[in-house]
Amino acid sequence: MTPKEFRMQVAAGEFHAPTAGYCDGYVQTNLLILPREHASLFAEFAKANAAPIPVLEIVENGVHSLTLAPGANLLREFPSYDIFEDGRQTAQVKDIERYSNNDLVFFLIGCSFSFEKAMMEAGIALRHIEEQKNVAMYDTTLPLVTKGMFHGNMVVSMRPIRADQVAKACVITSHFPATHGMPVHIGYPEMIGITDISQPDYGDAVAIKPDEIPVFWPCGITLQNVLRHVKLPFAITHSPGYMLITDKKDSDYYV
Amino acid sequence: MTPKEFRMQVAAGEFHAPTAGYCDGYVQTNLLILPREHASLFAEFAKANAAPIPVLEIVENGVHSLTLAPGANLLREFPSYDIFEDGRQTAQVKDIERYSNNDLVFFLIGCSFSFEKAMMEAGIALRHIEEQKNVAMYDTTLPLVTKGMFHGNMVVSMRPIRADQVAKACVITSHFPATHGMPVHIGYPEMIGITDISQPDYGDAVAIKPDEIPVFWPCGITLQNVLRHVKLPFAITHSPGYMLITDKKDSDYYV
Repeated sequence: MTPKEFRMQVAAGEFHAPTAGYCDGYVQTNLLILPREHASLFAEFAKANAAPIPVLEIVENGVHSLTLAPGANLLREFPSYDIFEDGRQTAQVKDIERYSNNDLVFFLIGCSFSFEKAMMEAGIALRHIEEQKNVAMYDTTLPLVTKGMFHGNMVVSMRPIRADQVAKACVITSHFPATHGMPVHIGYPEMIGITDISQPDYGDAVAIKPDEIPVFWPCGITLQNVLRHVKLPFAITHSPGYMLITDKKDSDYYV
Repeated sequence: MTPKEFRMQVAAGEFHAPTAGYCDGYVQTNLLILPREHASLFAEFAKANAAPIPVLEIVENGVHSLTLAPGANLLREFPSYDIFEDGRQTAQVKDIERYSNNDLVFFLIGCSFSFEKAMMEAGIALRHIEEQKNVAMYDTTLPLVTKGMFHGNMVVSMRPIRADQVAKACVITSHFPATHGMPVHIGYPEMIGITDISQPDYGDAVAIKPDEIPVFWPCGITLQNVLRHVKLPFAITHSPGYMLITDKKDSDYYV
């Protein structure tokens, strides 16, 4: 299935699941929608925290992507959206037509799913894809660079990697800086404030086998942690793991 | 001091210490000397285990380097040599003139000191250099690929790396495959058979601070582990940490 065909299914309400492993090799993105008055400060904040928040496209006029997935309707082509009010998630919905107005700015943000194909091609198994689960994501104590009111801690995605392949996983993902790049932490979850690795804050738990090490990458769900801290009256994100699949190839972002 | 000047000091018996941190930016090598009859099988073994045993030069005729350090006398320009008989180290000596004969083949083997400059230039602190100690080295349970009688386990060097710099250290050292390349293991010493990280099998112990992770690279001292397993009647190595400093730049081996 092409990304466009996949997005048509999503828009028609026929697909409602995490998108990891779909349309292999195509860039998937996170979403943040903000009222226009906060957009330029957020853009500055994202730039200062480019590893967890790599902005790939900003849509300021209208509701359609122009470059990543030309024509994609950002109100319906993510499989799930989270509505935030005053820093709390108040709803999870399959489309956001009802929230649309001329005052919204859309940020499409790189996602670590984009480098998973490169890892798998190098012979690195990824458990959440094998098990058709959502990737495990955790809040951490790693602080972001503050800009104005925008602040918070980094959220990370975790993949158990066979010990002898961990360095290779670092090297491969370092070639994808626009989609979170290399790991931010390796092993020892407690060093970044994760107290129970079997209880992810977002997504699904996966087993870590005795010959594997948990490896942590910056994650776009950092956005939700920021919203909880900043308590904007209104914002929208995609739901963790339910991404937009764009027309760009992961290889377009290989450096 | 140039490498040649440094080697002159060593040959004159005026320097007897680990060479880490000397002649910054120049390739240092490990040494294995074998009777000619075992040389070609060993070369094959080294090729099959190129991460721990990256052969950079083989000297088959005479006792002088031809390419890495042209003219260097391999009998005196390492600061210390270990003599092995029947798999046991029987002596440690400052030169090996007395052992010289026409039947010896010299293997010069890449050393992880070669990528340390690149790490330091990237802002990664290396404790053994700061503290002017020998790097900590450990026997492991990581098996080598067997070729004929040659077999054994990998020896690793360990550097404590600040947790947020570990992935970067992997990426940097991956550019130096001829000098051991990327780490073979990260964190969790027990997974590779190291039971007490405070007791290295070779070199000096260094502290691991609370915000650091022990990172393990393949190490040329693997040679000594192999000799202990294979029990050749006679062989010579350099002493762990006491390397030949060559005229090649580390950057000559950057890939």
